[in-house]
Amino acid sequence: MDKIGNKIYKWVEDLFPICRSLTGNGVRETLKYFQNLLPELQIHEVPSGTKVFDWTVPDEWNIYDAYIADEQGNRIVDFKEHNLHVMGYSEPVDEIMTFKELDQYLYSLPELPNAIPYVTSYYERRWGFCITENQRDKLRINPEAKYHIKIDSTLEPGNLTYGELIIPGSTDKEIFYSTYICHPSMANNELSGPTVTTAIAQYIASIKKRKYTYRIIFIPETIGSITYLSMHAKDMINKTIAGFNVNCLGDEHTYSHLPSKQENSLADRVARHVLSHHADDYIQWSFLERGSDERQYCSPGIDLPVTSIMRSKYGTYPEYHTSLDDLSFVTANGLQGSYEAHIKCIEVLEENEKFKSKVYCEPQLGKRGLYPTISRTNTYQTIEDMMNIIIYSDGNNDLLSIAELSGVYVGKLIPIAKKLLEEDLLETT
Amino acid sequence: MDKIGNKIYKWVEDLFPICRSLTGNGVRETLKYFQNLLPELQIHEVPSGTKVFDWTVPDEWNIYDAYIADEQGNRIVDFKEHNLHVMGYSEPVDEIMTFKELDQYLYSLPELPNAIPYVTSYYERRWGFCITENQRDKLRINPEAKYHIKIDSTLEPGNLTYGELIIPGSTDKEIFYSTYICHPSMANNELSGPTVTTAIAQYIASIKKRKYTYRIIFIPETIGSITYLSMHAKDMINKTIAGFNVNCLGDEHTYSHLPSKQENSLADRVARHVLSHHADDYIQWSFLERGSDERQYCSPGIDLPVTSIMRSKYGTYPEYHTSLDDLSFVTANGLQGSYEAHIKCIEVLEENEKFKSKVYCEPQLGKRGLYPTISRTNTYQTIEDMMNIIIYSDGNNDLLSIAELSGVYVGKLIPIAKKLLEEDLLETT
Amino acid sequence: MDKIGNKIYKWVEDLFPICRSLTGNGVRETLKYFQNLLPELQIHEVPSGTKVFDWTVPDEWNIYDAYIADEQGNRIVDFKEHNLHVMGYSEPVDEIMTFKELDQYLYSLPELPNAIPYVTSYYERRWGFCITENQRDKLRINPEAKYHIKIDSTLEPGNLTYGELIIPGSTDKEIFYSTYICHPSMANNELSGPTVTTAIAQYIASIKKRKYTYRIIFIPETIGSITYLSMHAKDMINKTIAGFNVNCLGDEHTYSHLPSKQENSLADRVARHVLSHHADDYIQWSFLERGSDERQYCSPGIDLPVTSIMRSKYGTYPEYHTSLDDLSFVTANGLQGSYEAHIKCIEVLEENEKFKSKVYCEPQLGKRGLYPTISRTNTYQTIEDMMNIIIYSDGNNDLLSIAELSGVYVGKLIPIAKKLLEEDLLETT
Repeated sequence: MDKIGNKIYKWVEDLFPICRSLTGNGVRETLKYFQNLLPELQIHEVPSGTKVFDWTVPDEWNIYDAYIADEQGNRIVDFKEHNLHVMGYSEPVDEIMTFKELDQYLYSLPELPNAIPYVTSYYERRWGFCITENQRDKLRINPEAKYHIKIDSTLEPGNLTYGELIIPGSTDKEIFYSTYICHPSMANNELSGPTVTTAIAQYIASIKKRKYTYRIIFIPETIGSITYLSMHAKDMINKTIAGFNVNCLGDEHTYSHLPSKQENSLADRVARHVLSHHADDYIQWSFLERGSDERQYCSPGIDLPVTSIMRSKYGTYPEYHTSLDDLSFVTANGLQGSYEAHIKCIEVLEENEKFKSKVYCEPQLGKRGLYPTISRTNTYQTIEDMMNIIIYSDGNNDLLSIAELSGVYVGKLIPIAKKLLEEDLLETT
Repeated sequence: MDKIGNKIYKWVEDLFPICRSLTGNGVRETLKYFQNLLPELQIHEVPSGTKVFDWTVPDEWNIYDAYIADEQGNRIVDFKEHNLHVMGYSEPVDEIMTFKELDQYLYSLPELPNAIPYVTSYYERRWGFCITENQRDKLRINPEAKYHIKIDSTLEPGNLTYGELIIPGSTDKEIFYSTYICHPSMANNELSGPTVTTAIAQYIASIKKRKYTYRIIFIPETIGSITYLSMHAKDMINKTIAGFNVNCLGDEHTYSHLPSKQENSLADRVARHVLSHHADDYIQWSFLERGSDERQYCSPGIDLPVTSIMRSKYGTYPEYHTSLDDLSFVTANGLQGSYEAHIKCIEVLEENEKFKSKVYCEPQLGKRGLYPTISRTNTYQTIEDMMNIIIYSDGNNDLLSIAELSGVYVGKLIPIAKKLLEEDLLETT
Repeated sequence: MDKIGNKIYKWVEDLFPICRSLTGNGVRETLKYFQNLLPELQIHEVPSGTKVFDWTVPDEWNIYDAYIADEQGNRIVDFKEHNLHVMGYSEPVDEIMTFKELDQYLYSLPELPNAIPYVTSYYERRWGFCITENQRDKLRINPEAKYHIKIDSTLEPGNLTYGELIIPGSTDKEIFYSTYICHPSMANNELSGPTVTTAIAQYIASIKKRKYTYRIIFIPETIGSITYLSMHAKDMINKTIAGFNVNCLGDEHTYSHLPSKQENSLADRVARHVLSHHADDYIQWSFLERGSDERQYCSPGIDLPVTSIMRSKYGTYPEYHTSLDDLSFVTANGLQGSYEAHIKCIEVLEENEKFKSKVYCEPQLGKRGLYPTISRTNTYQTIEDMMNIIIYSDGNNDLLSIAELSGVYVGKLIPIAKKLLEEDLLETT
């Protein structure tokens, strides 16, 4: 299994240098990379200006170069060194100004003097440079020094680009995955999301008898989910049995779970059940602590059961949204554990059913070889799980709730339920 | 604000000497006093003998003088010194008897030797004197001493008198207040109730755009509420969204809350929410510990959502129903705090609504100036309340429940909700 | 009261020597004994081969003699000494074999070297001897020693025998009791069950005005309840308001309760309420820890409210299903306490009702002599229970739930409710 984590980590490394944003060629390049791994991935373009619910698809942003150069022409801040140096969606600029003038366009973090912060201004035309506090301190020495400020960007009508992969199953009921392709060079939030999602998608494609259809999208945060929902929500509301917002899964810290607004949807129950058996411990966040696209997926009238299994949640670790969320913050082990938790959720969802007992009273398990024919003390213990499946299969409980009720991992119950189905003692409802 | 507490305290002082009871001129005098402060207050008379549910309006009681005099004619117990000295509803008496004979008509409290107890016999003809244990001890010295016993009272068909004030709002949905005017010279239980209610009524009359109609009654306990309900319950059941039984609010001890039988009616939720933010702490009583007119208002088939915000609850403090519940037991600060808690409840009730989001997904707050256009770490925190209102305005939650859910005072959410209404992002349901 | 426990203990003593099993003459002899005590008890026979849901009534087993004899003809293991020595349902055998050959047919308990285990093989033809580990150790000394193995049993088409007693009440709603007559010489599990049930049945027969009809069955475990349900479940599902699986009630250890699958059926609520007031403490088992015929009674589609009040639960004490569960394990006191708990449940069930107040507001209790006519401090306390019955009799609460709500034993409320019915203040709904 270790290989999958290494493979995912390699994808993160490959994609790390690309400058992604809400829109633009970085997004396209990233999606092409995933299309290589997932040949069925469709890449869609939505024109700037398209109305999507309360929002409008913004202009497309592309950036080619940017720097702050001193009077000697030395680039002292260079986009080519780190793409976080430029505020996302910066408009073009080409000016000479003193540090005193420049200062208002600079963003740094006094509390993390070595970190370049990640700052964007998608819906208000601005420009800016993000630098370390240490860099800024050096500039402060000579406030009258002059600098050449250059941002070679375009901000023009174009498209919002996203990827969509539908993997059909035997029913049109769907399991939904959403992940982000809008973050520039950061690793946990966010290259862990789309890379782990890609590995999940490869796993799904490999399932021989899929019950569910899988809808997997690679989008820019907020405007991407709003755009996608404006086109697909009506359809998804009827079809989606569970959804996952896949993000922040690369480090090795304690797992965490942020539920959907419903709090106890099937997706939430599966996520909690899997995490409680997959990991020693996990952090249970409340929906009040949301901050990712569950804000859209769980909004009134849409209310999809979209849940999040994470490692270190966005906003809770100091490296978040800075250059310190780099390739050293995530690991092959971290990525693999998160991948495995998601795979377990799929295994459970594919097999979870509401069963109904087909006989009144206990079936005679002994004659089917499922029960010891010599009765002695404590024999009940050994077939307890089977007995629990039978008695709780009353049309109200699904297998997951029987597992929760009886305190065992549902994965242990799945083969037993299959055996009982084969023996014609259960039926699905 | 301090002035209101002083004003209410002054009313308590003015009214303290009057001898009130279930019926009679003391009640009329008290209501006239309030009518002076609330010109719209209507005073109603219900004739003795009127059938009210399982009860009958009793004869009217008036008392002019009463005393126990020694053989020298010295009044050793005198109604004019303290009206608690005469058992409420005492029939007239004019006799000479020894202490030995008199003793059975005396009521005192061995555990509180300086207190005159408050004793009544409304529905069984009796007479009696209430004295301090110390007074009684002196009388005990000479059991054969003779005394002149005089109660100059009348107990005859007349009326039960109550006050009613309807302050109309823009809907006929009502908020209900009930308070007592049947207690003689006691301060917390009960002059705090009708005086604070008067101040509340003045506040209500001053609200410019009242949503709700307010029904405020000043009644004698038990028979008064039963009489009123026998005439108005049918109407009130359909109209009342919240009710308050206003009593025991004058001291400065810990606040307390006694819920309606429904336990979680809107009135109960508002009372608990306001108290938890208004005071450091409050005592949560169970409906099992009721003992006031919620016994009537919450009876089967009537079941009004009548809740009580109190300071020291009746029956829980030693001074209760004795002469020690006097003007020193209540304070301007105590009265004012209770008044303010009730005003906050009104503010909440007037503004509380179930809202519904008018857009799918998050509205674009940035373009309305409601959201920072530069995205950096932790920006969500600052507009969390607005986001919570939007996402939880799903037709199920009212503003109060959103406040409870997110752990903030609803007063903080009200202006935000108004702003969102103005921006046409919410509608009331 | 002590006499009842002694009487029940005597029945246990009388019945202890009989060799009972699923079927056969031991069962008939036992039922005849109970028929002597309960003349209306009907004894039914169901032929071997009858299909009962997923099962088939097995052949009838009778045993006349069995032993292991050494070469000198000495019976070293003798069924006549203890009927547990023969595995239940052993087929006949008459062979000479060495210990080495015999060993595979022997059952003992290394952890309890003095105990004969209780072992059966109802549905697979086998034979076997159950001996103490100490006996086996002696035999092990000479593995080549030869033994005469003799089991004089018959295993042939016959009948499954059970007892049924219907005690009619004034309604056809039923209270159901089920107990076992299939265990050979063991005392707690199980002679305590059928003997306590017999005493309960005598009590029921003595009730003058029974509201409910009582259905009481004496059956072999599992196949007996399945057989009975296959004939009567349809009828019972509509009629049964509460049921008790009566077993394991003879010792003096802490009481315990195993609920029905419904967990909060009337039967469960009564059992918990009675136990919490009958005993200092009791163990609350979960339905997950079931292991008796609630497995049948609570199966999907049948789902009867069958609860169990026990002392030491089957499977939780070391003597369980061994010869150590003997006449010294159970006591007259133990049996009597369990009997009394069940009688209290009947008293509660017979009187429990949903009442409805017939007057609006509080009735005037004073004029009926139910309330003190002098009002002083703390008078409410004394009639609190009456007031709670009145205000909570709103059509939703039965008397039991009012007792639970107000924290008193329902037996205390029953006479008060009767008084209120007499006064025409309540009606049953």
